[in-house]
Amino acid sequence: MDHLPAVLFQLFVLLLATKLGDEGFKRLGQPALVGEILGGVVVGPAVLGWYQITPETSLFAQIGAVLLLFEVGVHTRVGEVARVGTTAMSVALLGVAFPFVGGYLLGVALDLSDAGRIFLAASLTATSVGITSGALRSFGALATESGRVILGAAVIDDVLAMLIVAVAVGVSDGDVSSGRIVLLLGLAAAFIAIVVVGGAGILRTRRSLLTDPRFAETPFLPGMILMLGLAALAAQIGLAAIIGAFLAGMVVGESSERHALETETAPVAAFFTPFFFGFVGAQIDPAAFGSLPTIGLLIGITLLAIVSKFAGSFVGAIRRGRNRALLIGWGMVPRGEVEIIVAGLALTAGAIEPELYAVIVGMVVITAILVPPLMGPLVRRAEPAIVLV
Amino acid sequence: MDHLPAVLFQLFVLLLATKLGDEGFKRLGQPALVGEILGGVVVGPAVLGWYQITPETSLFAQIGAVLLLFEVGVHTRVGEVARVGTTAMSVALLGVAFPFVGGYLLGVALDLSDAGRIFLAASLTATSVGITSGALRSFGALATESGRVILGAAVIDDVLAMLIVAVAVGVSDGDVSSGRIVLLLGLAAAFIAIVVVGGAGILRTRRSLLTDPRFAETPFLPGMILMLGLAALAAQIGLAAIIGAFLAGMVVGESSERHALETETAPVAAFFTPFFFGFVGAQIDPAAFGSLPTIGLLIGITLLAIVSKFAGSFVGAIRRGRNRALLIGWGMVPRGEVEIIVAGLALTAGAIEPELYAVIVGMVVITAILVPPLMGPLVRRAEPAIVLV
Repeated sequence: MDHLPAVLFQLFVLLLATKLGDEGFKRLGQPALVGEILGGVVVGPAVLGWYQITPETSLFAQIGAVLLLFEVGVHTRVGEVARVGTTAMSVALLGVAFPFVGGYLLGVALDLSDAGRIFLAASLTATSVGITSGALRSFGALATESGRVILGAAVIDDVLAMLIVAVAVGVSDGDVSSGRIVLLLGLAAAFIAIVVVGGAGILRTRRSLLTDPRFAETPFLPGMILMLGLAALAAQIGLAAIIGAFLAGMVVGESSERHALETETAPVAAFFTPFFFGFVGAQIDPAAFGSLPTIGLLIGITLLAIVSKFAGSFVGAIRRGRNRALLIGWGMVPRGEVEIIVAGLALTAGAIEPELYAVIVGMVVITAILVPPLMGPLVRRAEPAIVLV
Repeated sequence: MDHLPAVLFQLFVLLLATKLGDEGFKRLGQPALVGEILGGVVVGPAVLGWYQITPETSLFAQIGAVLLLFEVGVHTRVGEVARVGTTAMSVALLGVAFPFVGGYLLGVALDLSDAGRIFLAASLTATSVGITSGALRSFGALATESGRVILGAAVIDDVLAMLIVAVAVGVSDGDVSSGRIVLLLGLAAAFIAIVVVGGAGILRTRRSLLTDPRFAETPFLPGMILMLGLAALAAQIGLAAIIGAFLAGMVVGESSERHALETETAPVAAFFTPFFFGFVGAQIDPAAFGSLPTIGLLIGITLLAIVSKFAGSFVGAIRRGRNRALLIGWGMVPRGEVEIIVAGLALTAGAIEPELYAVIVGMVVITAILVPPLMGPLVRRAEPAIVLV
């Protein structure tokens, strides 16, 4: 590596910029993720040009996405989701179906390719577990009935989004036929089922399996090995690498030493994910938002994302009463890391243009900023028993 | 990154192989580092060829070395070293001077370039803090007088090795004159002094500085930013990147939240350093040891490394009595990560041949295996008050 100094400098600049953005947005009471993306925009090629997208800096970003999904997987408890049961499931299904159909029709209207339509639809589907759980926590509503439904549904729709991504990645590789889509869905479902049922089953019968090796005092390093292995395998069989990482996290999270695992995974993810969000920002050219059609598209897609998700989730939750359904519908609106990763995959596959990529990231940023402030009144009406701290 | 699946697979294979090697060697009661290197040899280009040295895999290895030296820096307490005082200093100085002179003369005999001679000399100097502290801990001797002298001296000779590396890297860039060497030594000393005195001074007057930002609950992320920044700066001004990382660790280690910092740095370093040691193994062709001259060179360099370090440290410690001086001399013999990093820099700079690189790594492996078993009897004679657990 003759250019190690240059690579180190770029990583330094990006980490510094994202953390300054994080700091600024936290002080404004806004989501850190948005600050990190804006930090990347500022030092990226479109503005200052201190950070460049190279194979080495891209690798750090990709590993950041892999670690992020691994961490989401670790926090996904199959048992807890099952407990909130049917409401979470109907919220998730309708909350994914409405934006998916809306996104697909918009893709038709925009004259995108088949893969482009599915990617656009997929990039509207998943609620951000991170942002919505942060907002629920700040209103003390995490442990309420509404909070549990929102989190359970958000987790289920991550899995649904993974299935849709699998189809989109597969479709972007070749031609589309209903047989091929069924095949891809089947492959993805089989991969998920084999890994989760098999892996979790093995771990449940031998709960100390991951800490038996002498090199591993906690399940952290075995988890990292499994994460890289399943990510490589998923990418190899034509699914997205992040699907493998997500499943690895879910499986390893079943270990008896889950707390130690979370403690050790957190700093690694905290170190890597800024490189991902900064990379996302660096891919955006703010000048793209200078044209009226792009601004129109941004407003249109953002409205579509908000209205379709809210409507689907509201209908899915209506049996819990109107006030709770309003809170649950609104709580499902924030988009986040999964959308951005999906949009990035679509950009890399050539299925969408850089402009549409910027618009999708812009939509994520707007929903992430918009949702938390309006959540307070809805929480007070839906869960009046909460004492705000 | 079109070849993300391939990169993920290579990282997976290397992490798995190094951890299997780690496991095997721990079960044999041998240093894990050696097992990790051998794991890299097995999956590397010379044997199985599953892991290839590419810009992306090299980056992971380099970041591993940077994190390793950052972690060594965090554990280097300026105050503790000062307390063991003059004995540690004389052990360190003589324990560096003897191998350095021996290595330099051997370099002359082998007809190496100026840079090659300094690199070879540098790659014999530093005691492995990791291996020797591991051995002392297993004999319950960490907190004894001898143990404190050994650790203090090992830390000082890391700093001395950094100075020598600075000269070697500078010399390999251009021609050699005594003026240039003085300039490089001055530059390195000034860099070290400014960073350590300035950085530690600032932190001592405002001990909460690193945890004031809202993005940082512990000094970990500010530490990572400083690590990347100082590593890039050191590389930019012609020193080695690892020097900047080492200093960043020393400075951040002065923070009031040092325990939290160590807890969060450990998993990141645990994840990354196997990529470095595995990379080291992958650069070795076992066939190189098939020739008699190479085996002769390995035996010669290993003997030189052991005898010169033992003699220098023994003389430096003799005022503490013959038994303690024997233990201290022997305890200073293990070499480790610093040697391997220095030899890698020399290989990259073209100052030594791949064969000599393999021999230096072989010497490190032999001293790391040889020292701990013989330490027991010396500990019992030098520190009879210890009750072995």
